[in-house]
Amino acid sequence: MYTGEDLADLQDVNAMVFLGFGFLYTSFVRYGFSGCGLNFLVAVMATQLAIILNGIESWYYRGKITIHLGSIVVAEMCTVSALISIGAVLGKTNPVHLILIAMLEVSGFVLNGWCLRTLLKVQPLNSIMQLHTFGAFFGLILTWMLYRKGSEQQFEKEKSDRKTGLFSMFGTIFLWMFWPSFNSALIEDGTPGRKLQVVCSTYLALAVSAVTAAAVSILSSHKGKLNPNHMQSCILAGGIAVGVSISVVHHPWEAMAIGFTAAVVSTTGYKYLKIHTLLAFQSHDTCAVLSTYGLPSLLGWLAHLLLQLKDCNDQTLAIRFAVFHICTLLFTIMMSLSMGIITGLLLRLNLWRPPQDKKCFDDQAFWEFPHLAVHK
Amino acid sequence: MYTGEDLADLQDVNAMVFLGFGFLYTSFVRYGFSGCGLNFLVAVMATQLAIILNGIESWYYRGKITIHLGSIVVAEMCTVSALISIGAVLGKTNPVHLILIAMLEVSGFVLNGWCLRTLLKVQPLNSIMQLHTFGAFFGLILTWMLYRKGSEQQFEKEKSDRKTGLFSMFGTIFLWMFWPSFNSALIEDGTPGRKLQVVCSTYLALAVSAVTAAAVSILSSHKGKLNPNHMQSCILAGGIAVGVSISVVHHPWEAMAIGFTAAVVSTTGYKYLKIHTLLAFQSHDTCAVLSTYGLPSLLGWLAHLLLQLKDCNDQTLAIRFAVFHICTLLFTIMMSLSMGIITGLLLRLNLWRPPQDKKCFDDQAFWEFPHLAVHK
Amino acid sequence: MYTGEDLADLQDVNAMVFLGFGFLYTSFVRYGFSGCGLNFLVAVMATQLAIILNGIESWYYRGKITIHLGSIVVAEMCTVSALISIGAVLGKTNPVHLILIAMLEVSGFVLNGWCLRTLLKVQPLNSIMQLHTFGAFFGLILTWMLYRKGSEQQFEKEKSDRKTGLFSMFGTIFLWMFWPSFNSALIEDGTPGRKLQVVCSTYLALAVSAVTAAAVSILSSHKGKLNPNHMQSCILAGGIAVGVSISVVHHPWEAMAIGFTAAVVSTTGYKYLKIHTLLAFQSHDTCAVLSTYGLPSLLGWLAHLLLQLKDCNDQTLAIRFAVFHICTLLFTIMMSLSMGIITGLLLRLNLWRPPQDKKCFDDQAFWEFPHLAVHK
Repeated sequence: MYTGEDLADLQDVNAMVFLGFGFLYTSFVRYGFSGCGLNFLVAVMATQLAIILNGIESWYYRGKITIHLGSIVVAEMCTVSALISIGAVLGKTNPVHLILIAMLEVSGFVLNGWCLRTLLKVQPLNSIMQLHTFGAFFGLILTWMLYRKGSEQQFEKEKSDRKTGLFSMFGTIFLWMFWPSFNSALIEDGTPGRKLQVVCSTYLALAVSAVTAAAVSILSSHKGKLNPNHMQSCILAGGIAVGVSISVVHHPWEAMAIGFTAAVVSTTGYKYLKIHTLLAFQSHDTCAVLSTYGLPSLLGWLAHLLLQLKDCNDQTLAIRFAVFHICTLLFTIMMSLSMGIITGLLLRLNLWRPPQDKKCFDDQAFWEFPHLAVHK
Repeated sequence: MYTGEDLADLQDVNAMVFLGFGFLYTSFVRYGFSGCGLNFLVAVMATQLAIILNGIESWYYRGKITIHLGSIVVAEMCTVSALISIGAVLGKTNPVHLILIAMLEVSGFVLNGWCLRTLLKVQPLNSIMQLHTFGAFFGLILTWMLYRKGSEQQFEKEKSDRKTGLFSMFGTIFLWMFWPSFNSALIEDGTPGRKLQVVCSTYLALAVSAVTAAAVSILSSHKGKLNPNHMQSCILAGGIAVGVSISVVHHPWEAMAIGFTAAVVSTTGYKYLKIHTLLAFQSHDTCAVLSTYGLPSLLGWLAHLLLQLKDCNDQTLAIRFAVFHICTLLFTIMMSLSMGIITGLLLRLNLWRPPQDKKCFDDQAFWEFPHLAVHK
Repeated sequence: MYTGEDLADLQDVNAMVFLGFGFLYTSFVRYGFSGCGLNFLVAVMATQLAIILNGIESWYYRGKITIHLGSIVVAEMCTVSALISIGAVLGKTNPVHLILIAMLEVSGFVLNGWCLRTLLKVQPLNSIMQLHTFGAFFGLILTWMLYRKGSEQQFEKEKSDRKTGLFSMFGTIFLWMFWPSFNSALIEDGTPGRKLQVVCSTYLALAVSAVTAAAVSILSSHKGKLNPNHMQSCILAGGIAVGVSISVVHHPWEAMAIGFTAAVVSTTGYKYLKIHTLLAFQSHDTCAVLSTYGLPSLLGWLAHLLLQLKDCNDQTLAIRFAVFHICTLLFTIMMSLSMGIITGLLLRLNLWRPPQDKKCFDDQAFWEFPHLAVHK
């Protein structure tokens, strides 16, 4: 029943969750330990919670929760949704906040998946792939709820240096490399070769989106220079978009077109939207999760709709599908925003002692450094 | 006979030995190259020696040593035992010392395994899993033999900075991620699914011990802060303990209970024992191998005993098992301490020119840096 | 038709191309982003081009290019050839240069492979393994064409620091670890166990060459110190040499002998040849690709010849093989040098605005750093 492939899938997803996201979040010069260490802790906890929550149904009907490699992989995917949200509030929260966010997010996401599957008859794969949308909107509304006055100016320590930038680059490349495994991990090998087709499609989408993101970054810069932030997030856009629409992508050109569009949207969004969400909507989105995960996943949703309609001969079926597909998105966004608002209300209680503004983006607040060398 | 899985097992164990331990030991600010580069060299040599030593029996009976992927995996596990010991003397030795330590350790460990298998009829898997106990006690007695006056004060360069701390964190996460593969690499797939059951058990033990280690670290700190050193070693305790007792762990709760206890013991040990072994026993245990590997492996041994007794219906068999199990531990510790003392006596010869106190924890003593930038 | 192993092969080669080479090239203190980020971009583009070029034949006969995991692996191997060449001109080129180099190199290499296969009936595996020779000579002639006056003195920013050195070490260990997968990725499992035999041979060659490179580095140093540059490149020599001759290596001692010789040649070459190619031939070989990849691959070619002749009983066949084998090498070198000269002529056009001497080895020229912390 289990094969060697399962273990490799688990290790690849593991590498994304713990190394990829962990080191992606090390870019701030004084926040590396928190970025990587707290991400690790939160991911471990969220995974355990997700294993239990995903097993509730089985526990209800059969009286026990069976844990196998597949259930760990699914749980880590739910965790990714929480790690995305954390990107939006990174640096402005304490560990207790992060744990609360992860717990509530994962619960909301599991509930959302269950509703989609039972109410709207969404395939399990498609319901899990809503994780990018769910995570991005959750993070966005949360950081809006937690808005601090004066965030328009940058926080004192919200900057990176060459070395932390490299660590962050390292995290991104890990994510980029293992995204094909991520998208294919849940594909069951009913149709022989389907899994590897998914790997190829994702790889092509990622390759195209890496080149496109770099091109857009250079073209939209005054001096024709690359922006490291774009390289650290927008090259992933293709993997996200193609992941959301993976069940209907069957040709290389489809994957490549999706990857291209996703990278254009994501890089443009990063450049122009991040500052506007801050100034116009008072939503300080630290790692630009809206452009990095939100827009590509919406695009993937659209691509799914268009490709499915294209393949559909019967108009009644097509309309039926479109209605269900639109409901899926709306339900997910609604669910994500409500959970975000609930979490935000909870976190605004002074009970949790949020870090002061000048302690934001600083490891010193949460970590003990007894033997730290002074000069470096 | 060989399958794709073998290659994946080798690569996972490889990743632990060369990247995991290598970068775990980069935490000292001026000792990164030695930590990572010398670890690499020593690991490569020790693995080759272990391949030969493990093949002696086959060479004796059949006149040749067959090398296959499995023999490389076993050899790398013997190497891990040496890498653990090196953690105890890190920074206070020169490359020649390290190589001598690794050679003698691996020889001792292979001999120990052979004795356990032939004299006490221990299963090959269980005899190899003694590596943590063997390595920890070997390292401990060795660092006691090599004690330098004045070690109670910290060495001048025995400190880390943010960046080296992140490298070290990176090594730890690698170890943490691949520990399930490490524990399952030697499981033969006689019982279908047994290998993946081991992966799941180890994963759960690691997950629980990561959370527990963080909690204990925060609770035992005055200001409620996390200690990065605890995060860099004690989160592995569950993997070690469950690895030692893996042949009798069959239920998730057993793995989780072992992981929980191991993390509590390891973190508490790190906090209070490290300084006491130094002051009371004059044993300067650089990376706290006693708490990180020694105590969890003793706990794993105990868990093995208890779980086996619980499952045993026949009292005679139970007592017989207990006697053999206790002998296994005592023999391993005795063997480890004697080899440690022999190695220590050898290393105390001035012949090897140990680094002066002020050159301890300094790359400059062993590496040439022709083009090093000055200011950084 | 596709198995789980294919995905693992792809991920291992992926890890080498994007993480291994990427971080190998981060060693310069102000050139980390370019080393890693531009390498990533170039690799992504070159892989896509190689997929298309490798598919031209299929497109010509069947009207379409089929993309599967195997074709991505082959394409990434062609890319490695370009990444090797880039090591020779690293720091003295701008992104447009790098892209042009990669495009022309990959085209040349694919053309070379096609000629070798159709004209000289070389096996596909052997024709691809010429990548080291092709890449090294291409890079060498290219850096000679692009020689800048005053390169005898070091460039102002051509230096590394401890942290970038560690990143580079990390890249090397990644390459070292996954080289067995690289050499075995193209072996078809016609003969059962052949693939794993290749893994073992490569592993042994790498292990021996790591130890040998370190020994030669220490012995050839005045003060008996290790040179980090040797550790960052010469430990790979065994993998390269044994890769080139992999189709005739059947015994461990052969692999180990090749690994030993390769490391001696490579380390000695690094120590004495690098400066001579610069002073005598005005060829500023930044990462010493001649010694790191060129010499070991020539040695592997020689080993292939000798081992094949040793196994050959029929003298006519032996001579026939030798002639073809020599032609293969000469043709590859000729092709590589001509493509290098063409590329060099193209790059010398002022059109591409090469970076000024004082902007060499500086990220600032190509990357925008809006929020860079000042002091670090």
